[in-house]
Amino acid sequence: VHIGPEAPPALAAAVARAGGQVTTLGAADAVVWLDPRPRTLPALPERVRWVQLPGAGVDRWLETIRSLRGVTFTSATRVYARPVAEHALGLLLAGVRRLGEAARATTWERRYGGSLDGAAIAVVGAGGIGAALIELLQPHRAKVIAVTRSGRTVAGAALCLSAEQIDEVWPAADHIVLAAPSTATTHRMIGRAQLAAMREHAWLVNVARGTLVDTEALVDALDAVRIAGAALDVTDPEPLPDGHPLWNHPRALITAHVATPPAAASPYFAARLRENIARFGAGEPLLSEVDPDAEY
Amino acid sequence: VHIGPEAPPALAAAVARAGGQVTTLGAADAVVWLDPRPRTLPALPERVRWVQLPGAGVDRWLETIRSLRGVTFTSATRVYARPVAEHALGLLLAGVRRLGEAARATTWERRYGGSLDGAAIAVVGAGGIGAALIELLQPHRAKVIAVTRSGRTVAGAALCLSAEQIDEVWPAADHIVLAAPSTATTHRMIGRAQLAAMREHAWLVNVARGTLVDTEALVDALDAVRIAGAALDVTDPEPLPDGHPLWNHPRALITAHVATPPAAASPYFAARLRENIARFGAGEPLLSEVDPDAEY
Repeated sequence: VHIGPEAPPALAAAVARAGGQVTTLGAADAVVWLDPRPRTLPALPERVRWVQLPGAGVDRWLETIRSLRGVTFTSATRVYARPVAEHALGLLLAGVRRLGEAARATTWERRYGGSLDGAAIAVVGAGGIGAALIELLQPHRAKVIAVTRSGRTVAGAALCLSAEQIDEVWPAADHIVLAAPSTATTHRMIGRAQLAAMREHAWLVNVARGTLVDTEALVDALDAVRIAGAALDVTDPEPLPDGHPLWNHPRALITAHVATPPAAASPYFAARLRENIARFGAGEPLLSEVDPDAEY
Repeated sequence: VHIGPEAPPALAAAVARAGGQVTTLGAADAVVWLDPRPRTLPALPERVRWVQLPGAGVDRWLETIRSLRGVTFTSATRVYARPVAEHALGLLLAGVRRLGEAARATTWERRYGGSLDGAAIAVVGAGGIGAALIELLQPHRAKVIAVTRSGRTVAGAALCLSAEQIDEVWPAADHIVLAAPSTATTHRMIGRAQLAAMREHAWLVNVARGTLVDTEALVDALDAVRIAGAALDVTDPEPLPDGHPLWNHPRALITAHVATPPAAASPYFAARLRENIARFGAGEPLLSEVDPDAEY
């Protein structure tokens, strides 16, 4: 197993503990590539049959994966479900409790926020992150509206809707958390019509991909106080350029794509790597194989 | 029942639903006083036997209560336990996830925070707020260290310590939440020695009373990066004066005593009022009678 571009000790240890051996690229059957940018991946020797990617979202990798059909790529879906869900809850509470405004304040002024207690929270995309978030929301007595492609039953949700029923969500939810993969279907799924249909006190949280939201429409909605606010860990464009109206907007809170901890330092990624290397050694199916046709 | 200084419709309705009648002060057997400042309380006619206060903390009312020994005072302890615990969790997540810094940022820069997942969280004071917070922390798999006066067993806590054992808390906890009543014993319980004993990555959250913390020692600890930060809903002095070093401190997040929603608008207070008026009518013991000797 080759780990690149650099091998952190924790991951080399994970390889060893799974019965693998860290080698050079030339001698490797498998590659763990920690740089999230596809253009950094070196040309793969023929014997490489598997590449483990560091991130959960693979939209930027699809072209590369399609061009290397003989190689199995695995993503880190569900690896970061817990930390990302925790970040989503933090952003949601920070929004509802008006902590962004508080952080910028320089004088004592009471700004009472709302509460999640018993609130209707839409979780759009109930994969690993969504499921973990629903778990975190349980003691808040939140009524979760879970949206999945099929509308399947989601544990802990009060209401389960399919992608086709999604327009029912906007007026019904007190707050909305986006945790869906970036696909052609979810691209700019939040636009002017959706924002117009949301409740006035709603906070929109995005921990998925910035492209799920039409940023221009969002800025207009915030300027017009159409919704209470937006707390975003991902943006479009990303990085958000200096001088963008979302920076320091009184109704926006931006974190710089930090919900997912860096793979190189994450115990969650190390545990997944150990599991997948053991499976690779045993010839078993790997966790989170990427299907480039499904786009995730 | 007289409601003053003004009677919001929701509370007048709560009185009626409990079988009471809203009257003038002169005709009242009981008074609901919504202004948290003791000096606003008018002289009470002799027939008044009970005063319901709007807040959970009664430290500012003790003198008044002692001077009116024939009148039963009830506080709103445990009424706001859930919303205050939610605010505490919001402040804790905002600290750990570095959302205060994010809110002030005007350029894209990755600042990875920590996680509550499996963290040791000290909850100092495990009354209503503490118990509600411990419940909210359960799905985060946090190891809760609960500190109570007696060291009694607290549901959901991994470790229960008494007030006498509190020095064991500072080095053991990843983060510390203060939810203890303000008494002579808890006054400035967090000083230089306690801050020096805390972990470097620790966040200190205070949703109790500002006087539990030696503010000057805290500012020095934050300046010296002795601890990771402080997220405070209460301060000493309070209100925090303009120009105070805690405003916009990179390692501080201040909210202006808003964890407790205003009694006049709170469904939690209306529900408590309904219960206490029913008890008063039936001659039963009231909830949260203040014992001025115990100071809460």
